[in-house]
Amino acid sequence: MAPVALAPSPITPTVDFDRDGVQHGFLRLPYSRDDSAWGSVMIPLTVVRNGSGPTALLTGANHGDEYEGAVALFDLAQTLTADRIAGRVIIVPAMNYPAFQAGTRTSPIDKGNLNRSFPGRPDGTVTQKIADYFARELLPQADLVMDIHSGGRTLDFVPFAAAHILPDKDQEARCFAAVAAFAAPFSMRMLEIDAVGMYDTAAEELGKTFVTTELGGGGTGRAETIAIAKRGVRNVLRHAGILTDGLPADGRAEASRWLDMPSGDCFRFAEDSGLIEACVDLGQPVRAGDLLARIHPIGRTGLAPAEYRAALDGILAARHFPGLVKAGDCIAVVGTVES
Amino acid sequence: MAPVALAPSPITPTVDFDRDGVQHGFLRLPYSRDDSAWGSVMIPLTVVRNGSGPTALLTGANHGDEYEGAVALFDLAQTLTADRIAGRVIIVPAMNYPAFQAGTRTSPIDKGNLNRSFPGRPDGTVTQKIADYFARELLPQADLVMDIHSGGRTLDFVPFAAAHILPDKDQEARCFAAVAAFAAPFSMRMLEIDAVGMYDTAAEELGKTFVTTELGGGGTGRAETIAIAKRGVRNVLRHAGILTDGLPADGRAEASRWLDMPSGDCFRFAEDSGLIEACVDLGQPVRAGDLLARIHPIGRTGLAPAEYRAALDGILAARHFPGLVKAGDCIAVVGTVES
Amino acid sequence: MAPVALAPSPITPTVDFDRDGVQHGFLRLPYSRDDSAWGSVMIPLTVVRNGSGPTALLTGANHGDEYEGAVALFDLAQTLTADRIAGRVIIVPAMNYPAFQAGTRTSPIDKGNLNRSFPGRPDGTVTQKIADYFARELLPQADLVMDIHSGGRTLDFVPFAAAHILPDKDQEARCFAAVAAFAAPFSMRMLEIDAVGMYDTAAEELGKTFVTTELGGGGTGRAETIAIAKRGVRNVLRHAGILTDGLPADGRAEASRWLDMPSGDCFRFAEDSGLIEACVDLGQPVRAGDLLARIHPIGRTGLAPAEYRAALDGILAARHFPGLVKAGDCIAVVGTVES
Amino acid sequence: MAPVALAPSPITPTVDFDRDGVQHGFLRLPYSRDDSAWGSVMIPLTVVRNGSGPTALLTGANHGDEYEGAVALFDLAQTLTADRIAGRVIIVPAMNYPAFQAGTRTSPIDKGNLNRSFPGRPDGTVTQKIADYFARELLPQADLVMDIHSGGRTLDFVPFAAAHILPDKDQEARCFAAVAAFAAPFSMRMLEIDAVGMYDTAAEELGKTFVTTELGGGGTGRAETIAIAKRGVRNVLRHAGILTDGLPADGRAEASRWLDMPSGDCFRFAEDSGLIEACVDLGQPVRAGDLLARIHPIGRTGLAPAEYRAALDGILAARHFPGLVKAGDCIAVVGTVES
Amino acid sequence: MAPVALAPSPITPTVDFDRDGVQHGFLRLPYSRDDSAWGSVMIPLTVVRNGSGPTALLTGANHGDEYEGAVALFDLAQTLTADRIAGRVIIVPAMNYPAFQAGTRTSPIDKGNLNRSFPGRPDGTVTQKIADYFARELLPQADLVMDIHSGGRTLDFVPFAAAHILPDKDQEARCFAAVAAFAAPFSMRMLEIDAVGMYDTAAEELGKTFVTTELGGGGTGRAETIAIAKRGVRNVLRHAGILTDGLPADGRAEASRWLDMPSGDCFRFAEDSGLIEACVDLGQPVRAGDLLARIHPIGRTGLAPAEYRAALDGILAARHFPGLVKAGDCIAVVGTVES
Amino acid sequence: MAPVALAPSPITPTVDFDRDGVQHGFLRLPYSRDDSAWGSVMIPLTVVRNGSGPTALLTGANHGDEYEGAVALFDLAQTLTADRIAGRVIIVPAMNYPAFQAGTRTSPIDKGNLNRSFPGRPDGTVTQKIADYFARELLPQADLVMDIHSGGRTLDFVPFAAAHILPDKDQEARCFAAVAAFAAPFSMRMLEIDAVGMYDTAAEELGKTFVTTELGGGGTGRAETIAIAKRGVRNVLRHAGILTDGLPADGRAEASRWLDMPSGDCFRFAEDSGLIEACVDLGQPVRAGDLLARIHPIGRTGLAPAEYRAALDGILAARHFPGLVKAGDCIAVVGTVES
Repeated sequence: MAPVALAPSPITPTVDFDRDGVQHGFLRLPYSRDDSAWGSVMIPLTVVRNGSGPTALLTGANHGDEYEGAVALFDLAQTLTADRIAGRVIIVPAMNYPAFQAGTRTSPIDKGNLNRSFPGRPDGTVTQKIADYFARELLPQADLVMDIHSGGRTLDFVPFAAAHILPDKDQEARCFAAVAAFAAPFSMRMLEIDAVGMYDTAAEELGKTFVTTELGGGGTGRAETIAIAKRGVRNVLRHAGILTDGLPADGRAEASRWLDMPSGDCFRFAEDSGLIEACVDLGQPVRAGDLLARIHPIGRTGLAPAEYRAALDGILAARHFPGLVKAGDCIAVVGTVES
Repeated sequence: MAPVALAPSPITPTVDFDRDGVQHGFLRLPYSRDDSAWGSVMIPLTVVRNGSGPTALLTGANHGDEYEGAVALFDLAQTLTADRIAGRVIIVPAMNYPAFQAGTRTSPIDKGNLNRSFPGRPDGTVTQKIADYFARELLPQADLVMDIHSGGRTLDFVPFAAAHILPDKDQEARCFAAVAAFAAPFSMRMLEIDAVGMYDTAAEELGKTFVTTELGGGGTGRAETIAIAKRGVRNVLRHAGILTDGLPADGRAEASRWLDMPSGDCFRFAEDSGLIEACVDLGQPVRAGDLLARIHPIGRTGLAPAEYRAALDGILAARHFPGLVKAGDCIAVVGTVES
Repeated sequence: MAPVALAPSPITPTVDFDRDGVQHGFLRLPYSRDDSAWGSVMIPLTVVRNGSGPTALLTGANHGDEYEGAVALFDLAQTLTADRIAGRVIIVPAMNYPAFQAGTRTSPIDKGNLNRSFPGRPDGTVTQKIADYFARELLPQADLVMDIHSGGRTLDFVPFAAAHILPDKDQEARCFAAVAAFAAPFSMRMLEIDAVGMYDTAAEELGKTFVTTELGGGGTGRAETIAIAKRGVRNVLRHAGILTDGLPADGRAEASRWLDMPSGDCFRFAEDSGLIEACVDLGQPVRAGDLLARIHPIGRTGLAPAEYRAALDGILAARHFPGLVKAGDCIAVVGTVES
Repeated sequence: MAPVALAPSPITPTVDFDRDGVQHGFLRLPYSRDDSAWGSVMIPLTVVRNGSGPTALLTGANHGDEYEGAVALFDLAQTLTADRIAGRVIIVPAMNYPAFQAGTRTSPIDKGNLNRSFPGRPDGTVTQKIADYFARELLPQADLVMDIHSGGRTLDFVPFAAAHILPDKDQEARCFAAVAAFAAPFSMRMLEIDAVGMYDTAAEELGKTFVTTELGGGGTGRAETIAIAKRGVRNVLRHAGILTDGLPADGRAEASRWLDMPSGDCFRFAEDSGLIEACVDLGQPVRAGDLLARIHPIGRTGLAPAEYRAALDGILAARHFPGLVKAGDCIAVVGTVES
Repeated sequence: MAPVALAPSPITPTVDFDRDGVQHGFLRLPYSRDDSAWGSVMIPLTVVRNGSGPTALLTGANHGDEYEGAVALFDLAQTLTADRIAGRVIIVPAMNYPAFQAGTRTSPIDKGNLNRSFPGRPDGTVTQKIADYFARELLPQADLVMDIHSGGRTLDFVPFAAAHILPDKDQEARCFAAVAAFAAPFSMRMLEIDAVGMYDTAAEELGKTFVTTELGGGGTGRAETIAIAKRGVRNVLRHAGILTDGLPADGRAEASRWLDMPSGDCFRFAEDSGLIEACVDLGQPVRAGDLLARIHPIGRTGLAPAEYRAALDGILAARHFPGLVKAGDCIAVVGTVES
Repeated sequence: MAPVALAPSPITPTVDFDRDGVQHGFLRLPYSRDDSAWGSVMIPLTVVRNGSGPTALLTGANHGDEYEGAVALFDLAQTLTADRIAGRVIIVPAMNYPAFQAGTRTSPIDKGNLNRSFPGRPDGTVTQKIADYFARELLPQADLVMDIHSGGRTLDFVPFAAAHILPDKDQEARCFAAVAAFAAPFSMRMLEIDAVGMYDTAAEELGKTFVTTELGGGGTGRAETIAIAKRGVRNVLRHAGILTDGLPADGRAEASRWLDMPSGDCFRFAEDSGLIEACVDLGQPVRAGDLLARIHPIGRTGLAPAEYRAALDGILAARHFPGLVKAGDCIAVVGTVES
């Protein structure tokens, strides 16, 4: 059965992807609404091109409240010049731009979680239209794809770059080489259980070299984590032969520690709502049975808090960020590290 | 002219402040509203009393999104026993309880900033009624008053305990002795420029020994900062002779560094809105002229960020927390430290 | 010292209070706002006059979600003719009209609880302006004032008419004679503890004969309770010699049972939030110690509900209406009845 | 053509349905959102099992503002012990748990009406995911299915248990036997015109014995209607041989009156918005032509109300609950009763 | 492959389309929601019929904030009598009635843009259900279809009637004859690039004579533009032989100027947000390179505004209406006019 | 009795009002809130000074949805140079800046109508603090005060400049001379009935030459009305001897028509809600008894509209703008013009 032909994307770029030099422009996505009948979402992007080499597609703010990637890429877009590269760099600092403007994980327009909206639809919601444009127009043009995440307002992570375990071992090797080049404090090998709707999957299924990260969280960017992002982006571009500034890699890949989340036991979910008392900080070692956090009921004083303990040995790799917690929230992730 | 007699407070406590032992109860504040015609705000509190010694009044969540104090005090309320004290401890873990439940700085009921609502009014808004009850009923019963703040969701601080420079030098000395007993990593001597409406002022004007803190921020509590709060509370209670558990102070007061914010030059306010790039992290040294942060415009790529630099030497003592910033936000505070 | 002269009310009536016959019109209250720069609140009213006899001022929906009075008075306004009266009847079926339109206790404009806003202010909020107009313009014109309440969306009452115990015993006698004339199933003698801001007080302080009611609740009107309101209004107007239709009173005053709420023990407040299980229905007898209601925690199954019991003998006179309850809500009122 | 294989449900139970004894736990439904990136909806449930007998699946709050079922089932979950049953009872007191927490008919997350969302989708909205889990995981495990409804905040019903007229007359007979066992004041035989999306249909299509109810409404539960629910649940479990406490049925099935809604003429819809004047109360007899309700325009006084009359003889079986009504609302349902 | 049979529409008309005379009634669309479990959307309509002649289907407020059509059609519905017509006129003054009540372009219920929702779905959202009813029930009954648009709150147009360039040239000729009969100040020949989801397309695909308009905008109706609508509707009905009042056409078709928007260069989109300074008014001539508008940044004073210029010669045919503009908004449309 | 000393304003300007040259800066108003604990409102302003001549204080967007003044003043601030003036010009293009950013009449922070908030309070709401700063800091520095209004989103006016009839006839003459210099199409002599809280009054009571305007409305600015504002501002500055560019006045004062609103009969208020049908456009002549507008009920078709007629001869000077109208809205103002 022949596949149904999809309509063309409604998104119009204001740049020419095939022109040499630096162009700053927009992806214009028509969006008719109560406060603008003929309005559009304008997603800023920069294209830097110098001849016919490989293409890197760099994105931040896939979730709108994750800032390290957005800072690193607004910075790169403003400073990168064509004479320092070979090939092409496409920079979209804030992929889910409506969410980024609002400072929220999902889009305020349609509540869309962009990283669960792939492959998208040209006639769908605004978020689905963005996904469709990346899936059908931008990803096919790329060789290297880097999508920079952090934990957002409600999670905090130790900083790591990561790639997935893939059926194509050659592709997998390319991805992990890029992860190593990124040279974050931690590096991670991920086995995706639930890959439905992810940008990662869309890129990987097209055979691209795909790198992602988690570089912090809490809805802020610290000087340290922003520096990791800025360095990592340049390191990977140098590794790919696109950035040709002749500088050495910044930071040594060997210093990165390999992190793993081997099973569902890594994750602790709250069964209680209340005030969370963190008992371990990110990166600290824990042993099975150690107290990770306590949840105090807030309706009265004098009640005993609920206790949540580690199910395996490792380090605290991620944690619930806000001071209040609801039943069902993931409160802690314990990862294992290679000794 | 005789002062106007204020009406009695509408708040009713469900505990007897003069009874020995541990009591867990509420301050019940009648609040008629659309979803409960005869409803009330119920503010949890605990009173622990053992004889006729001095009274400590301990509060957290004066701003609803500050968590170290609330955790330390829910914990204290649940674990403190009368046999370990001499005198009385009144514990209100979440002073602006409606704000605390909502996880917001101000009250969702009336947008009241409790720490700018003193001395309050018995016939005012809910927040003003809380202020009035503390000002007229609880503060007069206390000898020692400790109000534990953090930066909340939008600011982050290096952890310090603090007291104000006061006209009564004897009172001031009592306050700074309590600050030293708290033994936070930093200690601070504050000259309040604008004391209008503050709980601090209400307590100080009654001659009380008053200690406050800033112990972190960002709308979370870390294991480290929560531990500082828990230790500090007990240290001060021991110092005051109320906690009589015979244990030594936890942490040495001498290790605390004295921090100062000598002038308006300490504070940097944004004149631009956009994406903030932190260039220094909390506690790091800065010199006058150093770049503290940059603000990237987010409407387009390719524009130069605005730069914000330090006006004096010191350490980064506080910073804007969220990744996005609005013109008018305080983005950084440089404090000076005693060498 | 001379009192400060208040500005005139900004409210303009579109009727002439001194003209004979039936007039349907409005109280026009200018209200500038985002969606109407030169807008107004229009409060419907009817004036029926026949010569120079006494004036009755009849009001409903003082709280906007109480319906028996509004129905009885829209009905009376539409059917009363001047030839059937002697004197004057001023009918305002929905006193807090913005709240009534929204179906809420308080005004959606300013959250004002009209019955706690007296004596009001001519330069205050919309709700305060309504209070001021009644206090300074309508009450002084009246001899008999009847304000018909019910429990609203969140409370439910056994149906009663009521008046206050007053220092002027002659006035008090006039009030209770009118209560008896109303002939509701229950009648009540109220000692107001907290009279601040009430319409009742504003009327009583001017020496008026004042009657109020609670006729049901839950945000609905039943055929039975609406009929009580319609009969009661006419009964009182006949009693006052204003309605001269020659018909006898509808219902016998002797059949009404006298209800009392002698102390604070009548009221039970929730200390728990959750799902309420009513154990007694309105009007049923209870004895001290009887279970009135249970509150089930809803975060988990398997937890024991909290129990709330009667503190004295009587009947269940009022109860919390919604299926969910919050800590601080009044869940039950036990009243005593004359045997 | 082979059906498309559905993805597995994302919902994880924290209980083991095949284990004997009492287990209190949750259905955990992952739900990523702005205020919790890795959050979940936690739906409380209880499983009581004693050997290999039949399974009853009991649910309340399919619509979140219906309380009799939720109270009866939280109570049953807390009190039922394994030794008093043979087989298994699965109790979900609040099926559309997000709606139940909010006190609304539909889910605050996605506005989903759960009872119109079947068979659901594993990759759909939160409400569709709940429907899918019941359709594919819980219903197949059940023999007897009881879903306890009331009218919710906007409708009020005379209390009845009901089942549908079904093509499989044997199944139909089982259902009506269970209805009779419930022994509500009224019992009803329903011919579903529009069965699309209903839980009822999903259960019936799997051949289950299905009973439903309408036990009151208005967003409250009265002591009387809660008692009907508690008795009815136990009566049906005894009838099914699952509850083996040896007690007799509570209430006699013969006392229940059979109710019918034979045609569209039973339903009266408003063509006017305004203030509703109920003229008949629930359960009262009406004859064709009788006035059921009047709607008063609220924009002015002095206008005649619109009248709504019965189209056939019967009793008032249901009515619009709030005091205000909008054009299009169903204001009254007249049912016929067997003499 | 046989098409999937759609379910019947849930919409019930309260009028009989085949009865002679004037009927005022509703399309009743059941809509269960939190504030009315058994509620409906009631869309007013009028049917005037006199024998078996052709049928005109007239609609306004397809977008809820467009007023000329709604005024002309409420007026026509109230004044048209059966004796002045031959055939049938179906009048729906406010097609997307929930949007019209709210004064918004899209439906407040589901954010549906009705004119992008065709052919709709009987089991979809409220807006999709309206589309489906028009597509399957009303359009098939019509010969002539007129849908009266304006610019809404955010756009303003010179007044024109329009039809599409169609593959069936006979149908096209019928449409343009009707446009000419309308006799608006401007007339337009449109080549639809993106016809997906439009009512226009649904009507044209059924072979109907279809006329549309843009008659002003800004969320208001002026006396002049309302008069154009009222005249145009009657002119077209006379042209179609349905209005048989014997009056001549009001206004001369020859006076209308033919307007064209030949390419994408007609449209100017904002790349900046800020305060818009209109430099040309509607209907004024412009030449390529002329300044159309400037956008002033509002974050500071002293910054140069961005300039937007015409790309071709013509007149200003449409413009952004609100004083503030967002990046992505269409700020001006230049149309060409036949000399 | 000595007046109570007011606290100093919390507002800090970032410019030096006494320095020669052009300065672009802000009024920084500290505003602590949930999304910025140490945030501020930043109100842009420009000061241009050349020596010691008179000072003009120019303001727009006193109501946030009025655009002609804001455009003219952002433009003036960006283009005015010190060498073209003698004295000083203080330009605040958007006086109620939070309202201006939101595009609303009143402040989104506190719903404050700035032009009804004078003299303001230094410890009040944000809007009251702005008023206080103008009243106590800026007005005293000014000789000439010009505040440029339009109708905003909900009203539309014929364009006029205006001043008040004042007790000081010399001051009044200065004001009207400035009005004449403005040279708008209409000029108006206003007798303020209700001057409470107005900026106008605050300026006039200090003896300043005060000019105001109404230059259009509907929440937009047309090229024509913006040009009137830009010309008028420069005309008045030339008239005052501050703008010394040697150019002649733009437009002739003699061409302006003098407009009057002599009594309450000029104003027509709606007693009905619905769809408004404008029958006269702005500037058109009307005679007493002429139909100004009709209001169509929208709940049904077939009902007669309510008619609103002129009470005196004149021109239509202002009108309700939105297509829907609520009871209480001012729908039309008839002004008289000098022949």
